[in-house]
Amino acid sequence: MRPSGRTPEQPRDVRITRNYTRHAEGSVLVEFGDTKVICTASVENKVPPFLRGEGKGWITAEYGMLPRSTGSRMGREAARGKQGGRTVEIQRLIGRSLRAAVDLEALGEHTITIDCDVIQADGGTRTAAITGGCVALVDALNHLVAAKRLKKSPLKQMIAAISVGVYKGTPVADLDYPEDSEAETDMNVIMTDQGGFIEIQGTAEGAPFEQTELDSMLVLARKAINELFEIQKEALGAEA
Amino acid sequence: MRPSGRTPEQPRDVRITRNYTRHAEGSVLVEFGDTKVICTASVENKVPPFLRGEGKGWITAEYGMLPRSTGSRMGREAARGKQGGRTVEIQRLIGRSLRAAVDLEALGEHTITIDCDVIQADGGTRTAAITGGCVALVDALNHLVAAKRLKKSPLKQMIAAISVGVYKGTPVADLDYPEDSEAETDMNVIMTDQGGFIEIQGTAEGAPFEQTELDSMLVLARKAINELFEIQKEALGAEA
Amino acid sequence: MRPSGRTPEQPRDVRITRNYTRHAEGSVLVEFGDTKVICTASVENKVPPFLRGEGKGWITAEYGMLPRSTGSRMGREAARGKQGGRTVEIQRLIGRSLRAAVDLEALGEHTITIDCDVIQADGGTRTAAITGGCVALVDALNHLVAAKRLKKSPLKQMIAAISVGVYKGTPVADLDYPEDSEAETDMNVIMTDQGGFIEIQGTAEGAPFEQTELDSMLVLARKAINELFEIQKEALGAEA
Amino acid sequence: MRPSGRTPEQPRDVRITRNYTRHAEGSVLVEFGDTKVICTASVENKVPPFLRGEGKGWITAEYGMLPRSTGSRMGREAARGKQGGRTVEIQRLIGRSLRAAVDLEALGEHTITIDCDVIQADGGTRTAAITGGCVALVDALNHLVAAKRLKKSPLKQMIAAISVGVYKGTPVADLDYPEDSEAETDMNVIMTDQGGFIEIQGTAEGAPFEQTELDSMLVLARKAINELFEIQKEALGAEA
Amino acid sequence: MRPSGRTPEQPRDVRITRNYTRHAEGSVLVEFGDTKVICTASVENKVPPFLRGEGKGWITAEYGMLPRSTGSRMGREAARGKQGGRTVEIQRLIGRSLRAAVDLEALGEHTITIDCDVIQADGGTRTAAITGGCVALVDALNHLVAAKRLKKSPLKQMIAAISVGVYKGTPVADLDYPEDSEAETDMNVIMTDQGGFIEIQGTAEGAPFEQTELDSMLVLARKAINELFEIQKEALGAEA
Amino acid sequence: MRPSGRTPEQPRDVRITRNYTRHAEGSVLVEFGDTKVICTASVENKVPPFLRGEGKGWITAEYGMLPRSTGSRMGREAARGKQGGRTVEIQRLIGRSLRAAVDLEALGEHTITIDCDVIQADGGTRTAAITGGCVALVDALNHLVAAKRLKKSPLKQMIAAISVGVYKGTPVADLDYPEDSEAETDMNVIMTDQGGFIEIQGTAEGAPFEQTELDSMLVLARKAINELFEIQKEALGAEA
Repeated sequence: MRPSGRTPEQPRDVRITRNYTRHAEGSVLVEFGDTKVICTASVENKVPPFLRGEGKGWITAEYGMLPRSTGSRMGREAARGKQGGRTVEIQRLIGRSLRAAVDLEALGEHTITIDCDVIQADGGTRTAAITGGCVALVDALNHLVAAKRLKKSPLKQMIAAISVGVYKGTPVADLDYPEDSEAETDMNVIMTDQGGFIEIQGTAEGAPFEQTELDSMLVLARKAINELFEIQKEALGAEA
Repeated sequence: MRPSGRTPEQPRDVRITRNYTRHAEGSVLVEFGDTKVICTASVENKVPPFLRGEGKGWITAEYGMLPRSTGSRMGREAARGKQGGRTVEIQRLIGRSLRAAVDLEALGEHTITIDCDVIQADGGTRTAAITGGCVALVDALNHLVAAKRLKKSPLKQMIAAISVGVYKGTPVADLDYPEDSEAETDMNVIMTDQGGFIEIQGTAEGAPFEQTELDSMLVLARKAINELFEIQKEALGAEA
Repeated sequence: MRPSGRTPEQPRDVRITRNYTRHAEGSVLVEFGDTKVICTASVENKVPPFLRGEGKGWITAEYGMLPRSTGSRMGREAARGKQGGRTVEIQRLIGRSLRAAVDLEALGEHTITIDCDVIQADGGTRTAAITGGCVALVDALNHLVAAKRLKKSPLKQMIAAISVGVYKGTPVADLDYPEDSEAETDMNVIMTDQGGFIEIQGTAEGAPFEQTELDSMLVLARKAINELFEIQKEALGAEA
Repeated sequence: MRPSGRTPEQPRDVRITRNYTRHAEGSVLVEFGDTKVICTASVENKVPPFLRGEGKGWITAEYGMLPRSTGSRMGREAARGKQGGRTVEIQRLIGRSLRAAVDLEALGEHTITIDCDVIQADGGTRTAAITGGCVALVDALNHLVAAKRLKKSPLKQMIAAISVGVYKGTPVADLDYPEDSEAETDMNVIMTDQGGFIEIQGTAEGAPFEQTELDSMLVLARKAINELFEIQKEALGAEA
Repeated sequence: MRPSGRTPEQPRDVRITRNYTRHAEGSVLVEFGDTKVICTASVENKVPPFLRGEGKGWITAEYGMLPRSTGSRMGREAARGKQGGRTVEIQRLIGRSLRAAVDLEALGEHTITIDCDVIQADGGTRTAAITGGCVALVDALNHLVAAKRLKKSPLKQMIAAISVGVYKGTPVADLDYPEDSEAETDMNVIMTDQGGFIEIQGTAEGAPFEQTELDSMLVLARKAINELFEIQKEALGAEA
Repeated sequence: MRPSGRTPEQPRDVRITRNYTRHAEGSVLVEFGDTKVICTASVENKVPPFLRGEGKGWITAEYGMLPRSTGSRMGREAARGKQGGRTVEIQRLIGRSLRAAVDLEALGEHTITIDCDVIQADGGTRTAAITGGCVALVDALNHLVAAKRLKKSPLKQMIAAISVGVYKGTPVADLDYPEDSEAETDMNVIMTDQGGFIEIQGTAEGAPFEQTELDSMLVLARKAINELFEIQKEALGAEA
């Protein structure tokens, strides 16, 4: 019944490729089916003005889509001279979510920027970015330890994200683009590997959604996210 | 235990003043305690390019804060030459939420812009904006009927919004600024007067939140929003 | 003969409400008839780069109109990404005028920003902004004294402003929007409470104006501004 | 007593060179002493959106300074990405003033843009721009007649401008930069060749100015502007 | 003697992967050693304003670098709100070069945009972009034929590009980043597969270069570019 | 055969007027026939951030065209809020070329900005700007010596530039606008007075160009540039 033939609770194949490019302290290609996002983590020895002198670090994120990552070409944001509202909203969500992974006091005066660039889009780019970005972040934290700039990694917990929704009346996990553009409700769920919620953003695209649908979606989300934690763990191997 | 002395489930005094300024088709001053937002609804006889020729209407929103609506002066966005990420995120939320109130087909080729300008901020500006903006929107729809540009109002349902959160371990409704800046979790809930959810945005500011906390917050939200619907109804009187 | 039924020399009812919002060091709602402007004065302990190290202070102003303060909705300047020419011109005028009220040496290294936001426009917004802004400025200066950051207020003189013009051949004071849009000549006059001119800006909208008309307009302006000084004094009470 | 040795009522040498560059329909180099401004008038067969279909024309102006027209280099506005407040204020003044020269109905659906670019600044650039720009405008209007796009020139009257001020207590005409930066009062006066005022902008830079000073300045302005009309006439020769 | 151990005339391994992403009409990953660029070609059924109604098509290009494609993170151009000078210069070069590949009359009223996004940089990104972009362009032209929007491909000739330079006194081909940052002279050569030059851009970074060095560099360039045409042909197989 | 009647190797009359405006440390009007560019050199006692503390100086350039320097009016870049791609490309070329004239170590921590503003355009504005800008630069360097801020001028060599091209099948030197808009190939050549190349930028506008055409164009360029060095020398007189 789903266009992809998946069962309602079945996420797409998820692949995480570490060290995808060579310059960044963390560099990951994350694929949720046909959605492909390059996530790099870059370390700088400084913090934004509002944190100066506080001895704490910062995690932030930026998001972009290649102009032809989508079915029809989108104007390049650099050429138009500003980031669109959707971009801003997504990169703020990624940044907030990944800050929850790290003890910012223990990070010290470093900023880690997670750049998430979508090279092919098929729905769920923000949840892929958070899930892959967390792995790039772990690599960058381990880099700081290896470079003796930190004694131990300030990682507190892993973070992963999945979209869930109500598609033709049925709650489903990990919507692809054909589902996403038809879904009545679309919800992004971000959780920790200890089972807590970091962020929930549910939107009724058509009819309002009811408490029972919300509950069903959250059950699907929790199950799918647990699978993502396994995939992250496998990708990181001994380094997690 | 709350700084304001309110009980956990007690929202602030909410006041809705219609016809607050004289030019707009709908003009409301909404106050959630010390949070004060001017919401105007402006009707135009045209639609954005992506809707042209489809015979449908559109509802959109813009949000701003006066520079000194806050404790320390914020730079004016018009002078800095761009709207900040928080502004963009909030105005997109308001627009999405209020579109759910209206049958866009029945609205015909009109655009209604809801401008929400915060003149004094004390937490909860976006939920106040949605709640007051919905009343301004109803007035603008009725204006179209009175002006014989529509046969009947295309209003489908009323929309209202409240923030809930976990403050010092206790779920509370309608956070003011002192609570908001300390809360572990902050969630904005937007509902219809028929009991469905339009949007849920919950964010763990510190520790992750658990399913039980989520459930408690949603109970508080539903109760408070029902009070808001009463206040909207009273403000609108016979015109609702 | 004036659309409002006023006599040529009669300004509109002017009301000045102090402490209109609660965060700013000075906060005034000024009303010239249906023109309503919120003027706040914000104090910062720093000066612009060109004054650093000179021991002097600075007064500056910013001006904005809510999008629907006017008969048809104006695009929001923050969304368009720049302030229009009219806005820039007006805020520079307000800033210049109010700097004349204060002994900048005695102000020390503080900047006071006067934000003037029009919530309802019916002509004369810039003169209302100057007249109300001066009261907000006085409150901010007194705040610096009360906070023991200055020994005494560096106020030199009060400043007020009125528009005058030639409407259907007759010089009139305090033009409202219906007059303003029809007037042959429009002049803004800014004066001190000691009778000197701070700024005169007269523009022929249609036919040029003659010396005798200029003289008549200045007589009307002086008379109306003297009434404004009384209203400012009454608003300030013992604090002036 | 004036740094230049001029008498109080003596303007600088004024030179107007027509056909200064070859592409524009009107092209003038205007010099007020060491102040040198290139004024071009460009004709387009269209009008701004707000005038479409009304059968009227439009006159507008743009102003710029070469980065090193001044004593120390100013940042290039094109590189900074926006025109400063002073630029905007000046070009609006030039546009308003020169619109008064022309019967816009008789101009028909043409826009004439007056570009005023300062190549060397020594005070009074805006008054030089208006005075020289009017000559470029006349040439452009005559070009429309010569090209048979208009039957007769829609010129109504000539416009010229001068600055006057109070320098060390004495009213003086046509301030140069050393005077301008020290003057207590600075006033720009724009008049028609029939003796009416188009615009008066007087600003107290230090102490307020009194009615008697205003009157003296206006006498000086009228006298100097009459000389400017002679110089314009001579430059235009038989074509005026 | 070259850091990579290559001989002076030896370019890096070049790989061209077609159909790299799935949405674009042409999509290529081009690798010149460690330099990796995604080139997509997007077809639109319209032309820029300056070509409307002329029956001709247009080829244009945009260029970007992922923020961490380089050794230290570069600010994202979309976030800074403008494309830097180097970006503008490169994308104009790519566009000019690839327009030479196509008979624009025969293309008809279509625009093809070549987006070149660098995911990993090691010198020579613009020459890689042109070489890979030409293959993406061929695919897009063939797509137009397959979709029956053109009778036959308007391809006139293949285009490829290589950098040559003088490194430690010796002319070398295809500089990588360690060479590029040390080279005395850097020249980009763009040619057709019929042996003509499309563009030559040679810059002395340190000492000026002499005619003999220019001649040697051009010999190296011609030889390397001929190898690139072989690699393009092999990638395209029967479709060239 | 050339529209101007010149022989293929004949450049236009070139005139260099020093001290053209009075404020800049170097100020030159350069004319290549009807192309007229004001080049000023401005000295500042500081260097850009990337050079701070290195004891070296910097040379940079900015380029602009007056809106009506061309046949039809171009929009003012300051008003549009950004510099176009062509402007950016040209000013980067001028800056790179003129940096080659100076020993930046010997310049010490000074920045010299060369502003090139085209007041009348007839082709070849960038080569005129480089040729005239070099003279302004020499004047600014000599100013630093005269002001005892440098012991001796850090000038290493003179720089001049010419355009060459293939017009109706024949290589020609110093293309004017009618030739430039028709030429098959357009090449800008920048050389030192010791005969080395600083930059070569050749572009096939129509058909590709061949090695023999390249060689012919370079011969023409070298000859014409040698004439430019004579004209520079004559303009500088004893100061070169």
